[in-house]
Amino acid sequence: MKLMFIGDVVGSPGRNMIKEYMPKLRRKYNPHITVINGENAAGGRGITEKIYREFLERGAHAITMGNHTWDNKEIFEFIDDAPKLVRPANFPKGTPGQGSTIINVNGTKVGVINLHGRTFMAALDDPFRKADELVAELQKKTSIIFVDFHTETTSEIQAMGWYLDGKVTAVVGTHTHVQTADNRVLPEGTAFISDVGMTGPYDGILGMNREAVLKKFLTNLPVRFEVTKGREQLNGVVITIDQKTGKATGIDRILINEDHPFFD
Amino acid sequence: MKLMFIGDVVGSPGRNMIKEYMPKLRRKYNPHITVINGENAAGGRGITEKIYREFLERGAHAITMGNHTWDNKEIFEFIDDAPKLVRPANFPKGTPGQGSTIINVNGTKVGVINLHGRTFMAALDDPFRKADELVAELQKKTSIIFVDFHTETTSEIQAMGWYLDGKVTAVVGTHTHVQTADNRVLPEGTAFISDVGMTGPYDGILGMNREAVLKKFLTNLPVRFEVTKGREQLNGVVITIDQKTGKATGIDRILINEDHPFFD
Amino acid sequence: MKLMFIGDVVGSPGRNMIKEYMPKLRRKYNPHITVINGENAAGGRGITEKIYREFLERGAHAITMGNHTWDNKEIFEFIDDAPKLVRPANFPKGTPGQGSTIINVNGTKVGVINLHGRTFMAALDDPFRKADELVAELQKKTSIIFVDFHTETTSEIQAMGWYLDGKVTAVVGTHTHVQTADNRVLPEGTAFISDVGMTGPYDGILGMNREAVLKKFLTNLPVRFEVTKGREQLNGVVITIDQKTGKATGIDRILINEDHPFFD
Amino acid sequence: MKLMFIGDVVGSPGRNMIKEYMPKLRRKYNPHITVINGENAAGGRGITEKIYREFLERGAHAITMGNHTWDNKEIFEFIDDAPKLVRPANFPKGTPGQGSTIINVNGTKVGVINLHGRTFMAALDDPFRKADELVAELQKKTSIIFVDFHTETTSEIQAMGWYLDGKVTAVVGTHTHVQTADNRVLPEGTAFISDVGMTGPYDGILGMNREAVLKKFLTNLPVRFEVTKGREQLNGVVITIDQKTGKATGIDRILINEDHPFFD
Ligand SMILES: [Fe+2]
Ligand SMILES: [Fe+2]
Ligand SMILES: [Fe+2]
Ligand SMILES: [Fe+2]
Ligand SMILES: [Fe+2]
Ligand SMILES: [Fe+2]
Ligand SMILES: [Fe+2]
Ligand SMILES: [Fe+2]
Repeated sequence: MKLMFIGDVVGSPGRNMIKEYMPKLRRKYNPHITVINGENAAGGRGITEKIYREFLERGAHAITMGNHTWDNKEIFEFIDDAPKLVRPANFPKGTPGQGSTIINVNGTKVGVINLHGRTFMAALDDPFRKADELVAELQKKTSIIFVDFHTETTSEIQAMGWYLDGKVTAVVGTHTHVQTADNRVLPEGTAFISDVGMTGPYDGILGMNREAVLKKFLTNLPVRFEVTKGREQLNGVVITIDQKTGKATGIDRILINEDHPFFD
Repeated sequence: MKLMFIGDVVGSPGRNMIKEYMPKLRRKYNPHITVINGENAAGGRGITEKIYREFLERGAHAITMGNHTWDNKEIFEFIDDAPKLVRPANFPKGTPGQGSTIINVNGTKVGVINLHGRTFMAALDDPFRKADELVAELQKKTSIIFVDFHTETTSEIQAMGWYLDGKVTAVVGTHTHVQTADNRVLPEGTAFISDVGMTGPYDGILGMNREAVLKKFLTNLPVRFEVTKGREQLNGVVITIDQKTGKATGIDRILINEDHPFFD
Repeated sequence: MKLMFIGDVVGSPGRNMIKEYMPKLRRKYNPHITVINGENAAGGRGITEKIYREFLERGAHAITMGNHTWDNKEIFEFIDDAPKLVRPANFPKGTPGQGSTIINVNGTKVGVINLHGRTFMAALDDPFRKADELVAELQKKTSIIFVDFHTETTSEIQAMGWYLDGKVTAVVGTHTHVQTADNRVLPEGTAFISDVGMTGPYDGILGMNREAVLKKFLTNLPVRFEVTKGREQLNGVVITIDQKTGKATGIDRILINEDHPFFD
Repeated sequence: MKLMFIGDVVGSPGRNMIKEYMPKLRRKYNPHITVINGENAAGGRGITEKIYREFLERGAHAITMGNHTWDNKEIFEFIDDAPKLVRPANFPKGTPGQGSTIINVNGTKVGVINLHGRTFMAALDDPFRKADELVAELQKKTSIIFVDFHTETTSEIQAMGWYLDGKVTAVVGTHTHVQTADNRVLPEGTAFISDVGMTGPYDGILGMNREAVLKKFLTNLPVRFEVTKGREQLNGVVITIDQKTGKATGIDRILINEDHPFFD
């Protein structure tokens, strides 16, 4: 079986790409399960209930998040009624929403976990111990477990990959908005990539308007980051899974932009 | 013409890969110019004069560095007599060594610049203004200019890519030790990649022993990072250049490891 | 002669304290020169032209700033016409406003410099080299030079104190909003204190509402920091200066709150 | 009753001050309980068993630590047999040593807790929730509880002070090595100070040699920090406690250096 994951969808350009390519990608890869990272889906900052529902309608089975989870205040109103929305699990006890879920597709159960890094990021609970806890819990129900670990540094995402190797089906990184070329199946059967990359503007800086980002670096004066216009891209991965063992047998990168056109 | 760049060489596993693949890569790509990032070449920490000379003998025309430049104290003894060694240019005035150089190969001059990021890194001088200054200086002598920008974040490397687009031949990132899949030629003719990746151990965490890195994440107790043993990888790029204009026409990734065997 | 400096004025509680105590403090200490740090004067975030003028009317000769300089957008409209407003000098070339000024009181010239730290703060230009440059320039006109160095860490402010010892009249820290007890005259005659402390709410956390700050630490969810109400405090220093040499002969702390009532 | 606390003892200059002033301070203040922060006692980095025992012999009832706890490797050999040594409690489960202890002096029990900040510091467990847990546990045995919270920022230490106000006897900060002037008893009876300051060299930068610290700031080249020589200082606090309720009734600063000579 196959699991498709689409990296950080940024604003309307990202949602356009989801709209346009989701049918094509589903035809091409025929994934049993599709997961989308939606932390930047609403204007680059958070997600709304409407977008959450839109993603489900387009074929997503779960939506993962990241450091931008709470940027759009609307989330506090719907997160506890959104069974397919998974925010980083290592926010402290009492945080609204959930850090993992189980998807049931045609009788196959798939666990989905979202975790948040701590290196150069907020001081949340230990993602490694939280992973242990959630994996133990989900393994009671399924051996197919997908982890989206939202991290700034390559050391932290790689540490998690090796830490969970053999215990989960896949550990993929999100947050840097740039796809890495290190997709591989680790020795004990866990699919891994340091970062899946983003879905949205192709000519921005992490999806944001270059003028603002450059002004920030050059002047340190306040700027307003906006999702930029123009050409678009989609970044994702497709993971092939041995359904009996929950082990991954492959992980392929999806990269669609003007330099890498989509082929059926 | 072609310029080949090999990303952060880590310890003896990295140097083994240079020894083994440099002849093969030179046969395959026939680069006019070869540059190696050597900041981790000596046991993961800095570089020695012997290694510097070894890299030149194996075909490198210049060696760039990064935040680990000064880790091996020997560098203070030979850096001012190492015309092909380029340390980050935005260390403050008075720093030993040089931040750029000009390579002369068969009558063609190529400028090489090394810069150091500031986001989640040391507070050095502004790399953008330093880039302006060096580019203006080198452009008096050549339109072919290669920039290795050593950065932690994707925003800072992308900002530099767009900032220098059309002014230099290539801006490539180093430091994260993971190759990114976003190699492209920007609209004004500058080849770009967020990170070239590393050369050395394939099964470490950024080349270091996984046990130590995991212990650090799990306990925050002191650990000793060592270059790990076992399977090896080589990461690089080959940039195709229009010699008349200094513009890049292509940038291809080199990725050699057990999952991506080398083909002649 | 004496120079009085009042630390970070926070919102209307801080401005109330200025209004109430400025006359009393001027009667008590009879300072020739008064400087106020106004980076938080407008609702905790930046300063307005009206507040700037109010401070001057109440007896301030110069207003220094910090990392919050640009928080209130109005500053971009008046900073270049505000000769007594001094923002951190080590913002890059081309930044609106000025990083130093000379005050002329009854024929005595006093140089005022504002600098911004880099440890755990924005990547600005080197404050040490910028200090050298400005001190050299101001020394052509006066030997009485006051430096407000806006820093997060005790190591950076102490480093500047020792660096400038004997070259300027005083180096005082601001930014942490807590007065330190290490006021002293360094061996070569420079008055020093790691932080002058803030002026505004006495029962907030750095002047902000405790509920919001605690919620942030406990949940990492978004909060809105507001200047808190209730009891108030004023923090400052009075520096005694040998007018002939520009050396400091003393530095006393001013601390006014319900636990430390003001005495004439 | 009184509790005396001495801030971060740095190297042999700090130990000299302990040796010289401990008898004088005990005579002057007659404290029932004495606690010393010893994280820098061994050459500025960690503590040895010999120094631990020396501090106890000189009258300390407990030794607290901080981010430098593990710098001297010897600690791993004796920490589990050192009942009066308290390292930050919010290191993860399984860490050697203990995060709190109970001292029994003449039938009076005093709880001592050490916690570690997370802002601009290592990603440890949540110090606020860990405080809740330890306070609940210690309160079963005594209402007199002393907390040394080792923090970089004034916001984090003040947040803890207000968070624990009324629940513990005192919350004092350590780590910045500079004494703050904000000692006070909070409204619900908890004694508070943002930082107690250090004990050791008076003319260093946080106790270290100024040349090395300045070289670091000016060049970003590697330096070796050493405990500096020369004049010495001692920083501490004396907390007055209502033994029946465990509430503090006062907190006075101790500051001994050439500018603030000791008076009996
Ligand atoms: Fe994102
Ligand atoms: Fe993110
Ligand atoms: Fe490196
Ligand atoms: Fe590096
Ligand atoms: Fe402030
Ligand atoms: Fe500030
Ligand atoms: Fe310390
Ligand atoms: Fe410390």
